[in-house]
Amino acid sequence: MKLIENAAGRLVPDFVNGKKQVPYKGVGKYKPKGKKHAPPIRSCADYPEDGSKVVKNLKEALKKAGLKDGMTISTHHHLRNGDVLTNMLFDTIKSMGIKNIRWFPSASFPVHEHLIKYLDDGTIHHIEGSMNGPLGRYTSEGKMKGLGILRSHGGRWQAIQDGEVHIDIAVIAAPTADPFGNATGDRGPTACGLLGFALADSIYADNVIVATDNLVPFPCTPWQIQGNNVDYVVEVDSLGDPSKIVSCTTQVTKSPDRLLIAEYIAQFFEDAGIMKEGFSFQAGAGGINLAFAVYLREQMKKKGVKARFIRGGSTKYLVEMLEEGLTDYILDGQTFDLEGVRSMRENPNHLNTSPFTSYNYHGKGNFASLVDAAVLGATEVDINFNANVVTHSDGYLLHGIGGWQNALFGKTTILAIPSFRDRIPVVVDEVTTLVGPGELIDVIVTERGIAINPRRKDLLKATKVSSLPIRTIEDIYEEVNSICGGKPAKPKLNKEKVIAVIKWVDGTVIDSVYQIKK
Amino acid sequence: MKLIENAAGRLVPDFVNGKKQVPYKGVGKYKPKGKKHAPPIRSCADYPEDGSKVVKNLKEALKKAGLKDGMTISTHHHLRNGDVLTNMLFDTIKSMGIKNIRWFPSASFPVHEHLIKYLDDGTIHHIEGSMNGPLGRYTSEGKMKGLGILRSHGGRWQAIQDGEVHIDIAVIAAPTADPFGNATGDRGPTACGLLGFALADSIYADNVIVATDNLVPFPCTPWQIQGNNVDYVVEVDSLGDPSKIVSCTTQVTKSPDRLLIAEYIAQFFEDAGIMKEGFSFQAGAGGINLAFAVYLREQMKKKGVKARFIRGGSTKYLVEMLEEGLTDYILDGQTFDLEGVRSMRENPNHLNTSPFTSYNYHGKGNFASLVDAAVLGATEVDINFNANVVTHSDGYLLHGIGGWQNALFGKTTILAIPSFRDRIPVVVDEVTTLVGPGELIDVIVTERGIAINPRRKDLLKATKVSSLPIRTIEDIYEEVNSICGGKPAKPKLNKEKVIAVIKWVDGTVIDSVYQIKK
Repeated sequence: MKLIENAAGRLVPDFVNGKKQVPYKGVGKYKPKGKKHAPPIRSCADYPEDGSKVVKNLKEALKKAGLKDGMTISTHHHLRNGDVLTNMLFDTIKSMGIKNIRWFPSASFPVHEHLIKYLDDGTIHHIEGSMNGPLGRYTSEGKMKGLGILRSHGGRWQAIQDGEVHIDIAVIAAPTADPFGNATGDRGPTACGLLGFALADSIYADNVIVATDNLVPFPCTPWQIQGNNVDYVVEVDSLGDPSKIVSCTTQVTKSPDRLLIAEYIAQFFEDAGIMKEGFSFQAGAGGINLAFAVYLREQMKKKGVKARFIRGGSTKYLVEMLEEGLTDYILDGQTFDLEGVRSMRENPNHLNTSPFTSYNYHGKGNFASLVDAAVLGATEVDINFNANVVTHSDGYLLHGIGGWQNALFGKTTILAIPSFRDRIPVVVDEVTTLVGPGELIDVIVTERGIAINPRRKDLLKATKVSSLPIRTIEDIYEEVNSICGGKPAKPKLNKEKVIAVIKWVDGTVIDSVYQIKK
Repeated sequence: MKLIENAAGRLVPDFVNGKKQVPYKGVGKYKPKGKKHAPPIRSCADYPEDGSKVVKNLKEALKKAGLKDGMTISTHHHLRNGDVLTNMLFDTIKSMGIKNIRWFPSASFPVHEHLIKYLDDGTIHHIEGSMNGPLGRYTSEGKMKGLGILRSHGGRWQAIQDGEVHIDIAVIAAPTADPFGNATGDRGPTACGLLGFALADSIYADNVIVATDNLVPFPCTPWQIQGNNVDYVVEVDSLGDPSKIVSCTTQVTKSPDRLLIAEYIAQFFEDAGIMKEGFSFQAGAGGINLAFAVYLREQMKKKGVKARFIRGGSTKYLVEMLEEGLTDYILDGQTFDLEGVRSMRENPNHLNTSPFTSYNYHGKGNFASLVDAAVLGATEVDINFNANVVTHSDGYLLHGIGGWQNALFGKTTILAIPSFRDRIPVVVDEVTTLVGPGELIDVIVTERGIAINPRRKDLLKATKVSSLPIRTIEDIYEEVNSICGGKPAKPKLNKEKVIAVIKWVDGTVIDSVYQIKK
């Protein structure tokens, strides 16, 4: 493994886990060649005539799927921190004496700390997927055998579609399913909303196992996952803990600083001319985003403006806007609370999307670039508008990318960030890890003011007469440093030891993550 | 081209249009190898950032798609005999001076007689797809340059998916679409219901053009065709004639003989134990089928039996059953009247299916084998229960296969046929063209009695005490011959000249169709 400098000036490995990499070349600069991944052709003659693919248990399904050492197993994260199935899956794999699995989740959560012992004992070789919390920490400490690979939601679709990651067995947790394998996430005792993060897996994996705790007679509807892509169906007692599946912490922030950020953004929507009849925006969960949605809603009502669509993850705040007629549609990629799940199940103007429709950069366009404005977060932003969402200033890898990189392609990208956290500046001279290139980031909104990327002359012009505190990013940077007593200490990293790489939306490597020095 | 005998004892060509063929090997006997067709990987960098793929006109779209001599162009038949777009498409292709197109429609209708001049002048080389009426007659007379290839709906998906037919340009008529290419058939001035027959084309073709006469702002919903698979969008004045798009001839038969057949079938459902709580059936349009549905509905009401699902094409009769609570769901592949279109748009228990979910034999199972009983038609049936749906007894190729071959995989297949038509027996010693093997056909219902395939001992036993006129097929055959004054004359065919082949659901060749001798 050799480190080479990519177009962003970052050092990235030429090989990762034995596979040659393409270094990041710039936004839109790398053009893929070749054909999409082609899964094997099957025959109905090899599947049960009565349509029932139910097998005894997970072990039986894994055996029939031909589980072997070194295979790639994929899971999805719709059950979030309530996921019981993935831990059960690896307990089963361990009991079968299988080794060196490449685990390819769409994301992992603190609940998956359970799997550290399987990383230690060689059951799992390495993880490719977002690592939120303990597994990220484990990786940062250099303990994982292989290198981690972090991809955005769209990048994960792209990697599967392009054949970069060949999935041997996909295991799909399905809150409701039928014996044929049709599955949905919008109902059942462990309802989570959508199953879109498992869609690519179901289409491209060699073997697909659906596990459910709510088996219903054919047809299970809506078939978010199509049984025609499924090999085996397994009944389990419970997929997870419903109270942890939908995040109940989706509360509007109470911090005065963060409320101020939210208010600034809502005002910016109006002053910059984004908030106009038929506009669209994306705002996820998280305290600032929710507060922003509440402010924007009031402004929209006051001005009599209706949106054409809002991109979720849905929360009760967005659902209320839909029900009040403030938007024609909500386009969801996932669902953040039970009101979102209910609305998705009941309201036909609540449209189910997937990483394919919304985020796949190697498609014929995607929805992300159609969104007028996306309001996102970051762990760090630098004076060139580059941003980081995966590591903290201490260098620890603690977050996944989610749809963040993909959403940057919206017409205007706004990062909502406090200017410092725990007395550590968030606006820095250079981000610890480059996840999003500054050319795609248009506006930084902090409680100390708003910085507009100089590339966006149109926004600078539109907000010339605005009462908002619009400043240069350098200006905010200096102020924050003086408040915090200087620049943050650089993290103590072993620059000889890459522990994970960050993929750009096109599959190229945009940055490396390094081992923490003890 | 050499004729070889297949497992059904039929002579079929070893090569068709220069491509090596696999002769039919028996039901479930041919096992495909290899991988699915892999379309090229694209990049969002090559598609408009604002998501608008609208180009000036069809010619512009065809140019951008790189139209060249000898390419394969696909269309779908949801607009049926009201289709204006396909004729306009080939007028455009002709005006561009392009030659030798392989036209790959999901079906053609009498309205496409317009294209005979393009078959004559070499614009179109040959047709692969069902030929209903004039184009079938043209082909039967040996006038088409290449050989016709007829496939079932499922077989068409299989052929595209397996890479047997590589589509260069798919042209999709969309009753409603947005500039990104999302498209639906369930609304708009030329609403046709579903667009499922174009789904494989949209996924696997190199270039996809959506033509619409109802362009709406993003998002067009439901996106039956996903814009992420679409390259260009074209606005046209009108896609077609709505009065001919949905067949208004879906009337219950008034013929006493045919009503009797319908009554027999409904009674058979009860006597054979098919009509029980949670059962399922398929019944298409056509006078007998509709009458059967009416009879069955009364029986279901009387006995208090509810179906789990009915497979359409939907008609107002099936929609009424759904609305009366006689079935949980209708699963539709297409839509036969405006009530069906309305219900599909409004009723969430009206489920949209596609040839992938319902009929693709090279998938991990499909819905067809889950149906308890399918009621279908035929042009001829022989004493071995083999059946024909494409040629008449005079040898003319006048019908497509539709979903007929695929639906034979239902648990019980019932053919509803008059024993003779125009004084020509329909029950014969050997079918002119073999389209469905007798081992998959369980029951023949005529106005002179019901024949159960001797393989179905269970049905023979279940109906032992039935009051229905259950007879042997030979018995019915003899009676019909005596009524009609003997066996029908064999068609005058040039057995040296194959003009089309019939594919089985797995892509093998089950029979040949021959030129009519003048």
